Amino acid sequence: MLFYDCSTAPNPRRARMFIAEKGLKIETHDISIAKSEQLRPDFLAINPRATIPVLVTESGAVLTENLGIAAYLEATFPEPPLMGRTADEKGAVAMWNAIVEQQGGWPIAEVLRNTNPAMKDRAIPGQTNFEQIPALAERGMARVDLFFDLLEGRLTQSKFLALDQFTLADITAFVFVDFARVIRRRIPQTNPATLAWFEAIKSRPSAAL
Amino acid sequence: MLFYDCSTAPNPRRARMFIAEKGLKIETHDISIAKSEQLRPDFLAINPRATIPVLVTESGAVLTENLGIAAYLEATFPEPPLMGRTADEKGAVAMWNAIVEQQGGWPIAEVLRNTNPAMKDRAIPGQTNFEQIPALAERGMARVDLFFDLLEGRLTQSKFLALDQFTLADITAFVFVDFARVIRRRIPQTNPATLAWFEAIKSRPSAAL
Repeated sequence: MLFYDCSTAPNPRRARMFIAEKGLKIETHDISIAKSEQLRPDFLAINPRATIPVLVTESGAVLTENLGIAAYLEATFPEPPLMGRTADEKGAVAMWNAIVEQQGGWPIAEVLRNTNPAMKDRAIPGQTNFEQIPALAERGMARVDLFFDLLEGRLTQSKFLALDQFTLADITAFVFVDFARVIRRRIPQTNPATLAWFEAIKSRPSAAL
Repeated sequence: MLFYDCSTAPNPRRARMFIAEKGLKIETHDISIAKSEQLRPDFLAINPRATIPVLVTESGAVLTENLGIAAYLEATFPEPPLMGRTADEKGAVAMWNAIVEQQGGWPIAEVLRNTNPAMKDRAIPGQTNFEQIPALAERGMARVDLFFDLLEGRLTQSKFLALDQFTLADITAFVFVDFARVIRRRIPQTNPATLAWFEAIKSRPSAAL
């Protein structure tokens, strides 16, 4: 297997944590988004959509998208399960992962991509350039506040997001919450359940990679 | 089991097609978004995020989000497989489903939600209102054109999107492509592979529901 990573970006970090939680060591190539390496012809030959992470599987198939990589790894290396064992559990993990991507991941990315001068014309990942939309950044910031409310509501009821144990949904939420520092948003001090959850996950070896 | 559907919206249609492709008959309640029924207290007690579809599982768990519902149903009713059999296949289905959601589903929804007078202040689903952003609709339209290019490129190589057989990724793409009629976008006549794929899926009984 071969893993294309980027040490500075949140989406590759999600796959990196997933791989580490499975106890796997996979040969890794770092692609620098700061140097626009994802747009070079040699990388576009691997992933024409110019996104990272990418996993080349044991059979040589090329998988992009965190869910594509996670589905493959969970099926190939079932232990420890990170996407649920029973049908109800699998449903809950996929549900919470989707909620976190939509309510947390997208708004945080929208704020960054539509405000950062270094991302001018890079408001959407991929080969095509798109201009920044300031109103989208403003809306994103309001949605990030709602996301913190949503997390606190859930984590007041449950030790982890999807199940009573650590799963893919916690990886996704942890990476996005940590990444929100780039838009100067932190877990509010009034949200004790989220603060405790974040510290617990931060102490896992996979979070230090 | 109990399924909360909405006959006019694309996301519930994805779950409805998945259920039909599994050969299941599930008691269904229709929630009218046109009448804002998803914001009524009795529905918010079921899904406080005010989204449809929702599936109440055999054990009584409440699942929202298409991927949550699909993961549960695939695990409970494995035949016919709609999310891949082997690890490589599972990865490819999850990957293509994610690509279609991001590159097709979101842009189409952005155009509709940021232009339709009936969706004023409803630019994002959920309990909180958000104003329309006209620039986002404009960007969405440009992205829909790229999405049609992406589909044609893939379907020129492969009979179905993820595998050589029908999967969840085809359901997602078919529903969004069909829904694009509301923003007056159709598969370009210059895209024969996509046109053939669309007609093939349209002829499935699950597409008529």
